[in-house]
Amino acid sequence: MSKRISDGDGVGKEKEAVAEADRISSGPSSNRALPYVAHQVGLPPKQSLFQEFTARVKETFFADQPLRSFKDQSKSKKFRLGVEALFPIFSWARDYNLTKLRGDAIAGLTIASLCIPQDIGYAKLAGLPAENGLYSSFVPPLIYAFMGSSRDIAIGPVAVVSLLLGTMLQAEIELNAKNLVEYRRLAFTATFFAGVTQVTLGFFRLGFLIDFLSHAAIIGFMGGAAITIALQQLKGLFGIKIFTKKTDIVSVLRSVFSSAHHGWNWETILIGVSFLAFLMFTKYIGKIKNKKYFWVPAIAPLISVILSTFFVFITRADKHGVAIVNHIRKGVNPPSANQIYFTGELVGKGFKIGVVAGMIALTEAIAIGRTFAGMKDYQLDGNKEMVALGTMNIVGSMTSCYVATGSFSRSAVNYMAGCQTAASNIVMSFVVLLTLIFITPLFKYTPNAILASIIISAVLGLIDIQAMKLVWKIDKLDFVACMGAFFGVVFVSVEIGLLIAVSISFAKILLQVTRPRTALLGKIPKTKVYRNILQYPEAVQIPGVLIVRVDSAIYFSNSNYVKERILRWVTDEDPELKQKCLPKISYLIVEMSPVIDIDTSGIHALEELYRSLLKRDIQLALANPGTLVIDKIHASKFPDLIGKDKIFLSVADAILTLAPNYEI
Amino acid sequence: MSKRISDGDGVGKEKEAVAEADRISSGPSSNRALPYVAHQVGLPPKQSLFQEFTARVKETFFADQPLRSFKDQSKSKKFRLGVEALFPIFSWARDYNLTKLRGDAIAGLTIASLCIPQDIGYAKLAGLPAENGLYSSFVPPLIYAFMGSSRDIAIGPVAVVSLLLGTMLQAEIELNAKNLVEYRRLAFTATFFAGVTQVTLGFFRLGFLIDFLSHAAIIGFMGGAAITIALQQLKGLFGIKIFTKKTDIVSVLRSVFSSAHHGWNWETILIGVSFLAFLMFTKYIGKIKNKKYFWVPAIAPLISVILSTFFVFITRADKHGVAIVNHIRKGVNPPSANQIYFTGELVGKGFKIGVVAGMIALTEAIAIGRTFAGMKDYQLDGNKEMVALGTMNIVGSMTSCYVATGSFSRSAVNYMAGCQTAASNIVMSFVVLLTLIFITPLFKYTPNAILASIIISAVLGLIDIQAMKLVWKIDKLDFVACMGAFFGVVFVSVEIGLLIAVSISFAKILLQVTRPRTALLGKIPKTKVYRNILQYPEAVQIPGVLIVRVDSAIYFSNSNYVKERILRWVTDEDPELKQKCLPKISYLIVEMSPVIDIDTSGIHALEELYRSLLKRDIQLALANPGTLVIDKIHASKFPDLIGKDKIFLSVADAILTLAPNYEI
Repeated sequence: MSKRISDGDGVGKEKEAVAEADRISSGPSSNRALPYVAHQVGLPPKQSLFQEFTARVKETFFADQPLRSFKDQSKSKKFRLGVEALFPIFSWARDYNLTKLRGDAIAGLTIASLCIPQDIGYAKLAGLPAENGLYSSFVPPLIYAFMGSSRDIAIGPVAVVSLLLGTMLQAEIELNAKNLVEYRRLAFTATFFAGVTQVTLGFFRLGFLIDFLSHAAIIGFMGGAAITIALQQLKGLFGIKIFTKKTDIVSVLRSVFSSAHHGWNWETILIGVSFLAFLMFTKYIGKIKNKKYFWVPAIAPLISVILSTFFVFITRADKHGVAIVNHIRKGVNPPSANQIYFTGELVGKGFKIGVVAGMIALTEAIAIGRTFAGMKDYQLDGNKEMVALGTMNIVGSMTSCYVATGSFSRSAVNYMAGCQTAASNIVMSFVVLLTLIFITPLFKYTPNAILASIIISAVLGLIDIQAMKLVWKIDKLDFVACMGAFFGVVFVSVEIGLLIAVSISFAKILLQVTRPRTALLGKIPKTKVYRNILQYPEAVQIPGVLIVRVDSAIYFSNSNYVKERILRWVTDEDPELKQKCLPKISYLIVEMSPVIDIDTSGIHALEELYRSLLKRDIQLALANPGTLVIDKIHASKFPDLIGKDKIFLSVADAILTLAPNYEI
Repeated sequence: MSKRISDGDGVGKEKEAVAEADRISSGPSSNRALPYVAHQVGLPPKQSLFQEFTARVKETFFADQPLRSFKDQSKSKKFRLGVEALFPIFSWARDYNLTKLRGDAIAGLTIASLCIPQDIGYAKLAGLPAENGLYSSFVPPLIYAFMGSSRDIAIGPVAVVSLLLGTMLQAEIELNAKNLVEYRRLAFTATFFAGVTQVTLGFFRLGFLIDFLSHAAIIGFMGGAAITIALQQLKGLFGIKIFTKKTDIVSVLRSVFSSAHHGWNWETILIGVSFLAFLMFTKYIGKIKNKKYFWVPAIAPLISVILSTFFVFITRADKHGVAIVNHIRKGVNPPSANQIYFTGELVGKGFKIGVVAGMIALTEAIAIGRTFAGMKDYQLDGNKEMVALGTMNIVGSMTSCYVATGSFSRSAVNYMAGCQTAASNIVMSFVVLLTLIFITPLFKYTPNAILASIIISAVLGLIDIQAMKLVWKIDKLDFVACMGAFFGVVFVSVEIGLLIAVSISFAKILLQVTRPRTALLGKIPKTKVYRNILQYPEAVQIPGVLIVRVDSAIYFSNSNYVKERILRWVTDEDPELKQKCLPKISYLIVEMSPVIDIDTSGIHALEELYRSLLKRDIQLALANPGTLVIDKIHASKFPDLIGKDKIFLSVADAILTLAPNYEI
């Protein structure tokens, strides 16, 4: 490793060395013409309170400057831009052409063939009749196609939200034939409030709230939910009649094994397992050869449904205990606005369920939208997306749909099938419409086992072992959040898993802010750069000077800790340190570069630090305070206390002023 | 302002300039013997997972290394140190002497004279009989004297905790003659759980949790509570009989004015207002001449009580409607362990009240302890303090005391009277004991109005306008938290004020983490230093290179924002920026100094940033990643993606490598 001076080339370095030697020999007290003068620390231009406030609000809520394109435009242009902002379809439809249509049509047909069997299965997961699943793949995708800005997302019911909704609804209303109407009404109410939540978050630009569910927590949550959903499908796959209502792995497995002797139906198992094997095989096919055959797993579910339905129909296996779908209501979505609870005890419950389901649906949709936007390199306006998703769920709740969102598996197929715009959702939605009008009676003999197989093969893709491994490698605390969510979902319930995920994510932020790291700095030989002596073992500490870097904003939550930690560096009886700084410490330089902000408590802590140091005969100096910090330090008159000349542009500056004799 | 090169003196600078000129003329592609080689970014020594974990746990929970002094000691020494750690009295009693005794005795007598009238008043605030206030100034200070490590704190009931306890107890049990026993039992239960909470926090070293209530929020909360308490005293001061149970300013003032015609008692007002004037005057006396007469306001309350009691006794004003204390039970604390609820419905309520009251009591005591420890420059072990305070409240709850903590006004008097050790608490506690045994019957004729005056004059000191002004000047968001707490307490209730204070404090942390600041950097002329161009207007941007500093850890909560914000700097159509960087940007350097940490989402965002930049033909480079960051970046294989040579020790290094032709 050839380490060289960082700020000059070879010759420069040598000349510099000569210059340094010159300087050292002349000493700090010499009468040379140009004594060293430290560079001033800049004070940012003073802003009025109003300016400061608006700048902060703008950066928090309007970080993406949504109105930028409206600036300096005529009124009619502004109106057009406004309409296009709300309905991006008017923007992309103008240069829509046949090539794009071809891509969208193929993609739309592919995702339709995938969504129809999934929808029927997911509706069961939510405890709703099969037709509600299909309804949710007709109206919401249409609305989204007009209002959404993602080009790749495929809208419809998804497994995790269906499971979450089902669990939470059944916690409020026991699901049986008598309560079915009430249960559906509560489902529509929850869907309505999920939509309202989403629109509200988007409209008030609070989209950043969903960022609080960390990537790692989502991976764990999704993986856990996938396992829970797959386990639940054992009921359909084995043809078990009496099954637990709980979702945790212990209850489910107990249910499965206690029914082993009398509750399993071999015909059902035969159908289910053989088609599951077929589906898994097509999934494998889809992955080889550069995903050239991605369409194989995409149409496999529909083929399975057709084959198995035909098989059951000719063998009349339903007479031998093979459970079948039996009845799906024919025709388009009936209106359901009058079924939403707006008064009574159930409004509150519907609201609570809606908020949680809406947030989770949002998290999933935005994550998917961002992923594909990143792959095709276009910008996605998170807040606008939320308004689109929310509107589609509000309209959905009035047309017998339940919470729809972006599906990861179908969006991936959509992308690979070459979708160009949101028009693929329109194509899909029309295929679903035709299905609802003409084909639903044909699903009568579809065995439930095949739906179970389709759901299992779909959700297994949500268990992302690779991503979990990566999280483990990068950040152990993230991994704890991931595993907490995973085991919470698997062993307790979906809500508990979610709660664990959110709590650990928050705790991580707070821990960071409460116990910031501090580091001792040393000079990297032959440079003017001061760095952490643990990270750079070659860095050398300056005798008599302790340079401490605080790695965080100094806030009320950590100001005491920071003060005491710094004092501990000073008074530390650590023999190692004592050896290194043999001469008595006479200066403590606090490197403030990472100190982004400071508050009243922080200033207070600095004052206390100064006083404690003074009693030990140690001078305090600050290096490189940032914009916010220098502003607040000046407002507090702290510079008068420690001396205005004790605040430096950089550590190098401070050392040159305070310990001018030192040179490595 | 003479600005000079920061890293070299005059001659050095000139020679350097020559060197630079040399280098520039030779160009980056010259065959000179010593081409520029960037300094390596240090990789910290690899720690095992276990080491990393223990180091983190140690720093979070045992930041103060509580067992340091136990290291390398003999067993008997370890035992002695352990006893001394739990009971610091054995440590300081060894070199106790007459001089110290003199200081402690004077201080103890002074605070006793102050605490006796206050205790009677505060007990009323908590809805408890007067004797419970006195009991709480006997047992808890004794326990604290043995276990506490603060030398200045004066223990006993305090106004804010009494009010909080009273409000919360009365929300559960209506206070009337019938319910008194039940009410007292719930109060002891709450005290017990307050103690348990405190011991638990201390034992599990979770003391940092109380740091989450920010300094500004405490100022606001205390100020609001003071006003609420003072308003409540209008009942006693005006002799009003029918008074609202609510604590908000609107209800209280309505109560006062609606009773103006028939409910006020002029004799009471005369006594109350004249003594209030006397007390306020003595407070003024106490402040002048360098606080030489600090003892005047300290003994004034007792003098007022004696004078007014004597006056009522000889005039028999109680027959004219002047409310008097009437009865205080004589004798020492009766045991109350059997009165604590350990079963039944009220346990939960007592627990809830206890946790809140315990936390607030802790916050107050620790704040006071730290203040005085800072003034006398000794270290206070927060966790040990919590164990001491908790134990004293647990024992207190079994001896008819309610929640005691450190009182600000009495601790200040204690300090000024020259206390040396916690022995002053022992002296005070003995005086209270004598009072309980011999003098309580004499309080029979003490008018309630005088207690009201004493409380008003005591709590007005909690309204700290100066501190509020300072908060406003330093940090506006802190001021919002301060005012939120203040108005929450004054206009709604103590609990709501507390909730507002905590919520805003948390929101502030989260906002900081969600919307971190970013800054464009420029080179400060004649230095190698790159700084924010807004803070240093003289800083010059390098043509073709955009240097962005991210002012925060990059976490899941902000990774998307950071990525999009940086991309916005690049694509920004801001004409100002365009002008400055006229040549097309070909390098983006992210200065990572303030990026303390990064997680999986953060790495992910960097990868996306890299890809987006690549499509725009811009190279990404990182400068000065810290210990944690470089570790995680290496774990993620990100360097392979952007190129290992794109990670630099400093921005100056990066510029020398990427844009070697540039020099100002």
